[in-house]
Amino acid sequence: MSILVVGSVAFDSIETPHGKVDHILGGAATHFALAASYFTDVRVIAVVGEDFTPEHEAVFDRRGIDTEGIERAPGLTFHWTGAYSGNLNEAQTLGTDLNVFAEFAPKIPESYKDSEYLFLANIDPVLQARVRAQMPDVKLVCGDTMNYWIKDHRENLLAVLRTLDVLLINDTEARMLSGVDNIVKAAAAVMALGPRSLVVKHGEYGATAFFSDRAFAGTESRPFRAPALPLAEVVDPTGAGDSFAGGFYGYIASQPELTPAVFRTAMFYGGVMGSFAVERFGTQRIEAVTSDEINERFNLFREISHLDPLASGSGV
Amino acid sequence: MSILVVGSVAFDSIETPHGKVDHILGGAATHFALAASYFTDVRVIAVVGEDFTPEHEAVFDRRGIDTEGIERAPGLTFHWTGAYSGNLNEAQTLGTDLNVFAEFAPKIPESYKDSEYLFLANIDPVLQARVRAQMPDVKLVCGDTMNYWIKDHRENLLAVLRTLDVLLINDTEARMLSGVDNIVKAAAAVMALGPRSLVVKHGEYGATAFFSDRAFAGTESRPFRAPALPLAEVVDPTGAGDSFAGGFYGYIASQPELTPAVFRTAMFYGGVMGSFAVERFGTQRIEAVTSDEINERFNLFREISHLDPLASGSGV
Repeated sequence: MSILVVGSVAFDSIETPHGKVDHILGGAATHFALAASYFTDVRVIAVVGEDFTPEHEAVFDRRGIDTEGIERAPGLTFHWTGAYSGNLNEAQTLGTDLNVFAEFAPKIPESYKDSEYLFLANIDPVLQARVRAQMPDVKLVCGDTMNYWIKDHRENLLAVLRTLDVLLINDTEARMLSGVDNIVKAAAAVMALGPRSLVVKHGEYGATAFFSDRAFAGTESRPFRAPALPLAEVVDPTGAGDSFAGGFYGYIASQPELTPAVFRTAMFYGGVMGSFAVERFGTQRIEAVTSDEINERFNLFREISHLDPLASGSGV
Repeated sequence: MSILVVGSVAFDSIETPHGKVDHILGGAATHFALAASYFTDVRVIAVVGEDFTPEHEAVFDRRGIDTEGIERAPGLTFHWTGAYSGNLNEAQTLGTDLNVFAEFAPKIPESYKDSEYLFLANIDPVLQARVRAQMPDVKLVCGDTMNYWIKDHRENLLAVLRTLDVLLINDTEARMLSGVDNIVKAAAAVMALGPRSLVVKHGEYGATAFFSDRAFAGTESRPFRAPALPLAEVVDPTGAGDSFAGGFYGYIASQPELTPAVFRTAMFYGGVMGSFAVERFGTQRIEAVTSDEINERFNLFREISHLDPLASGSGV
């Protein structure tokens, strides 16, 4: 099944304790699409500037990602500058040059209209809503957001939340969105705003899925906890959350039906793709991972979290 | 098999968003012993004052805990005053009255000498070392400590660490003890100080076990992640870590041999007992939990973290 993702294709300038890179390919839609491409077909809606070259395009092409919906506009591509220090859990944004993104009006190519899975990556909720409205018949809608939209664009965000099946955010965002400190209560409050289920990402501690009684007809009331891999080296956390989303949603779209078991397995694949993403700067690792490596790491995630040894492997 | 635990039996005055209690029974050895008592025989070494009444003693008696090693001294029992706010992850210590604990010289009754498992709860490492030296032939030694000893009593603590098989600490303590921010590297550095394996507790995110090549003859090199239960109500986090340790070590002592599988299962029982502990103030919940409730919650921990449904339950 095809996933349509709308979000940013950007250039990132990043400094971490492991080094410094300038204007490398990044953006939520890029990280998401690359991670999801190992599981299913992916189509991208975004806008880039004149500095987006055939070499950048080739990164998508090599993974078979459909870029017909990446619009070329006069000017420069969206550029983010950020730095990480200490335990690399939180990015410090040093600069956000919206450039061509400032005037972005998402247009959906005809060939994308039959996409069954929609992912609204972290962008202005007004744009998320516009894409959502043009895809009324999709099978499943999953979305992401961030503190900036929660804080200063709340009404617009709430309109999007009402149309989502699954929301993926982190602990801080869940607390900020709900105004509740306890994460179980925060999850319930967030799901009351629209999403039938909620994935809360805990960074190095993994992620927890919460299900409302509208998810799986209320048969799945327990949360589900997926681990993250304890890593000795985190080179660059940029895109880890988007790669998690790509692995998670890509796996879901590769399955005939979204069952509780598929949702749980998808949480593990999210963690797997997130764990690869941080091993190198930008998209370097996720561009070049193999299916064997993904399967091997999936089994490792299972081994480090399951009481019983693995009976038989699952495959991409 | 019997566990000998040395640590504090204390009175706690605690304020949390759920209420306020004054001089209730607490202390690391108390929480540990109660949690471990559901799995195996427990013997306690501690000191209390004249304000420790038969009603307090009865809490231990009802759980079949051996209190011959709880010394009565003139004066008042150790008293801790603390408060929690916000998300209840960190206690704020408002007062520490050592009282009879200031002059505590642990004495091990003859009847305790055949204990095969030793637990050094969080007390002055000088006292931990003294007890350890008097129990040279135990099968396994597990210990706990805290930021205060790491920071200001480092040399004494290092002497204890050299004699430990398993150390249980939290993320902050592991980072402080090793001087390393990355938790995988911090774990390796801590294990180089003595413990063959290390359990790092992450509060509401569960716990991770790390194994050196001296644990299980190097056959177990992967870490292991155990979940915590997402809880809508945390009434009082005091003693959660000690209850985790009690469940963890109690289960280990109940098994014929410490294998990797036993270690993993013990991590789950640790989480289970920790999750009960926080449901009420002080020891109220752990005093009165049933084996059925423990088994039921163990299965819940398994269900919220395992990809496959549970085949057959494990039992206390």
